Amino acid sequence: MTDKTDQDRVLIFDTTLRDGEQSPGATMTHEEKLEIAGLLDEMGVDIIEAGFPIASEGDFEAVRAIAQRAETSVICGLARASFTDIDRCWEAVQHARKPRIHTFIGTSPLHRDITALDQQGMIDKIAATVTHARNLCDNVQWSPMDATRTEHDFLCRVVETAIRCGATTINVPDTVGYTAPRESADLIRMLLERVPGADTVVFATHCHNDLGMATANALAAVEAGARQIECTINGLGERAGNTALEEVVMAMRVRNDIMPWRTGIDTTKIMHISRRVSQVSGFAVQFNKAVVGKNAFLHESGIHQDGVLKNVQTFEIMRPEDIGLNAKNIAMGKHSGRAALRAKMAELGYELGDNQLKDAFVRFKALADRKKEVYDDDLIALMADSAASAVDDYLQVKKLRVICGTEGPQEAELTMSVGGEERFVDATGDGPVDAVFNAVKMLYPHGAKLDLYQVQAVTEGTDAQATVSVRLSKDGRVFTGQSADTDTVVASARAYVNALNRLHAGQGRTSNSALMQSAG
Amino acid sequence: MTDKTDQDRVLIFDTTLRDGEQSPGATMTHEEKLEIAGLLDEMGVDIIEAGFPIASEGDFEAVRAIAQRAETSVICGLARASFTDIDRCWEAVQHARKPRIHTFIGTSPLHRDITALDQQGMIDKIAATVTHARNLCDNVQWSPMDATRTEHDFLCRVVETAIRCGATTINVPDTVGYTAPRESADLIRMLLERVPGADTVVFATHCHNDLGMATANALAAVEAGARQIECTINGLGERAGNTALEEVVMAMRVRNDIMPWRTGIDTTKIMHISRRVSQVSGFAVQFNKAVVGKNAFLHESGIHQDGVLKNVQTFEIMRPEDIGLNAKNIAMGKHSGRAALRAKMAELGYELGDNQLKDAFVRFKALADRKKEVYDDDLIALMADSAASAVDDYLQVKKLRVICGTEGPQEAELTMSVGGEERFVDATGDGPVDAVFNAVKMLYPHGAKLDLYQVQAVTEGTDAQATVSVRLSKDGRVFTGQSADTDTVVASARAYVNALNRLHAGQGRTSNSALMQSAG
Repeated sequence: MTDKTDQDRVLIFDTTLRDGEQSPGATMTHEEKLEIAGLLDEMGVDIIEAGFPIASEGDFEAVRAIAQRAETSVICGLARASFTDIDRCWEAVQHARKPRIHTFIGTSPLHRDITALDQQGMIDKIAATVTHARNLCDNVQWSPMDATRTEHDFLCRVVETAIRCGATTINVPDTVGYTAPRESADLIRMLLERVPGADTVVFATHCHNDLGMATANALAAVEAGARQIECTINGLGERAGNTALEEVVMAMRVRNDIMPWRTGIDTTKIMHISRRVSQVSGFAVQFNKAVVGKNAFLHESGIHQDGVLKNVQTFEIMRPEDIGLNAKNIAMGKHSGRAALRAKMAELGYELGDNQLKDAFVRFKALADRKKEVYDDDLIALMADSAASAVDDYLQVKKLRVICGTEGPQEAELTMSVGGEERFVDATGDGPVDAVFNAVKMLYPHGAKLDLYQVQAVTEGTDAQATVSVRLSKDGRVFTGQSADTDTVVASARAYVNALNRLHAGQGRTSNSALMQSAG
Repeated sequence: MTDKTDQDRVLIFDTTLRDGEQSPGATMTHEEKLEIAGLLDEMGVDIIEAGFPIASEGDFEAVRAIAQRAETSVICGLARASFTDIDRCWEAVQHARKPRIHTFIGTSPLHRDITALDQQGMIDKIAATVTHARNLCDNVQWSPMDATRTEHDFLCRVVETAIRCGATTINVPDTVGYTAPRESADLIRMLLERVPGADTVVFATHCHNDLGMATANALAAVEAGARQIECTINGLGERAGNTALEEVVMAMRVRNDIMPWRTGIDTTKIMHISRRVSQVSGFAVQFNKAVVGKNAFLHESGIHQDGVLKNVQTFEIMRPEDIGLNAKNIAMGKHSGRAALRAKMAELGYELGDNQLKDAFVRFKALADRKKEVYDDDLIALMADSAASAVDDYLQVKKLRVICGTEGPQEAELTMSVGGEERFVDATGDGPVDAVFNAVKMLYPHGAKLDLYQVQAVTEGTDAQATVSVRLSKDGRVFTGQSADTDTVVASARAYVNALNRLHAGQGRTSNSALMQSAG
């Protein structure tokens, strides 16, 4: 993989599950992480950073499960510069076919102050921890956090130390999203020229988008000799996020004339994974997002603009099908059959088994009865809804009637099955959703706090489906629920109950309240 | 303004109202355009591209009204390479204190094919049209559309022609978002070196974000000698959008050490205008958007992460207050008084007159009764709601009661005042919103088509406000409505009625179905 002879090959290191998932509000469940890791593996991501094993039990379990299942990707875990962190990381990744330990320390003056280490003290610590990691695993990545604000001489010394102690990949993080393309390239070039042994390792670039230049900075680093790009799907990540995988990959493809490098990514998988990451993280992609935004392609938005559009190339540099987006969005109606649904779903990236198809078909028919046209996005929401409800259904919404409007208080009448027993209650609230949640709480008292309630319209029109996401927390654990329906109030009830089912089943994850910041 | 002696000054040319507004679905009303233009003028934008006067009557009227009101910004209109276009553009901008005509033609081989002009034919056309524009106005900008895909020799010839015929600004558009930073810089450098007279004009860069590099490309062009950046608020624009104003402006400010240029922008106005553009265009800004995203600053998202955050500079390169974002988001409660509301509103960028304050206070109190904590975003939604309903209220929602839930059909009982007369109706539908819209249609039959129905959650929690946007079209004219309420169903009714009031008052705009594509 780290084949130094193929100088055109750029490795894609995806950190959606670590740096992305760490962004406040983007917490994913164990099952969601496994699903996303599976999609990353399948699309040809070279290295998946699956999590930060010591951060929590949940992180550890997720990294371990991903390591056990990965087919071709290298599975990497993050660890601070401590033996305990590194040991825990190794415990999680060791079962992978190709494991990697990624260890880091903040090297800029600001970070040295925080760790209270002088330059020599830091070098000793790096030597000890990288050596320790390399004794466990022959694939070790090391990062000087905040590299772009570290003095060049010191940066050379720490990188040299890490290489000498066995690091096989040196990552250069622009932790605060501070750099610009020329500076990003100069930094990599400086390291390649000055550091003894630099030619024996792979240099990686890890950029943040605070000034809107993460993509350009990453590509500039590659131009200077970096051969690994660290990125996330949809540019998910703390603050303004990380370099977006879809942007760097498509830029190298579209402009291969001036950026003559290859990745192993199957670009036709981009759209599907983008949608799934958006759904499970609750981070909507803006219409005008590069590559994966709803308006990114003309065919989506400008189909009625015939005027001068005699030649689609006039305004389009990528084809929608390159990223797995279908030109026809109107998909299915109430007369569509089971085989058509299976074919359509496969086109959208879902391979359904017989039971899944049966379940999906029932849901599809119910939707088609209420909605004239069922679009691709509706089907994707429907699949997300199925995935979300595939947990132990201790609680089930049986019947809901809500009265709302200009004269408050709003009222909800709810019949819910609780552990197999049907119960009824009548509750009021500020608005229909508040009333519904109050009703649920009366039937199933729980001490959880509502951290997030979010509505996303899936398609347009008043009979559109809306996807509702709910996030609850209790005793430091987080539980999410999601549901889609043409009635926002019904979707809200189901999403809330869904999250409570996860709470009941103990399927939450320890909230990673950033006991540490990350290597980038 | 085009002071060639101040080599550090970069002009900001905002095209939110032209290239931004042209993106499918982002149509703004006349009043909204005037408001946004006012904010751009106030924040120190050097040139406002106010629209494409020949595209429609609505565009013409908007450009004229903006020209008449602008205080300090140059007001620019767009025109194709035709005398009719240019005359119409001049008619609209001539009343501005500082008018500019911006004329363009597609110069790449693909565009030459479309216009069926050979190289000499195109040069003759450019000479004639630029001369014509310059005879009307002494401030003329000319653009070779698709410049980045035009042969260098031919590009030099056309630019030379435009300069010789009197163009004062030469804009170099990367119409398809195709270029990369080094290439973007090389192109400007090439033109500056090779074109006779290049030193007598200002060069502008106009980038699109299809490959995620619009910001870096614009800044690279400046490094090479361009002194005008064309951009939009939030990067609004067709496909993946244009260069984002907030990103280039903040990048030059934060990294002034390596990008030593100044703009005239008051950056503390950024957050307010970003929110307003998002609201009126219906294009939500993603959480992880650079500079203006909800998560862009640590203080918003990571306030509970104490761990290593001993020093905010460790992870933060800009301060929230630099862009006009308040560190404290919890704003007001039900006991807050009128003076506090006025002060808070001023802080958020709204200067309220006495009558406006009175109206806002009534709405604020009603909201505070239903909502424990009223956040900045709630107040902004409330102001948007006031602005939207400040039209002739021919229709008014008096009373609404909706029954919805798992057992359809959903039912709406609506009392509405129609031209002063109260009427009642009972209707059903697929989901609560469909039922409400059916009820409105029964009381006020109209032939308009619903083009967009969109819900945006304003703040979090079940008692959160939601902003509903509705767009209707009839006979080629577009009417928008917006409303915010803690009850999505009520907000939907009000937004729909709002759009219908605009239809009734004839306050729509001709839909600009892109009879032409733009100069970038």
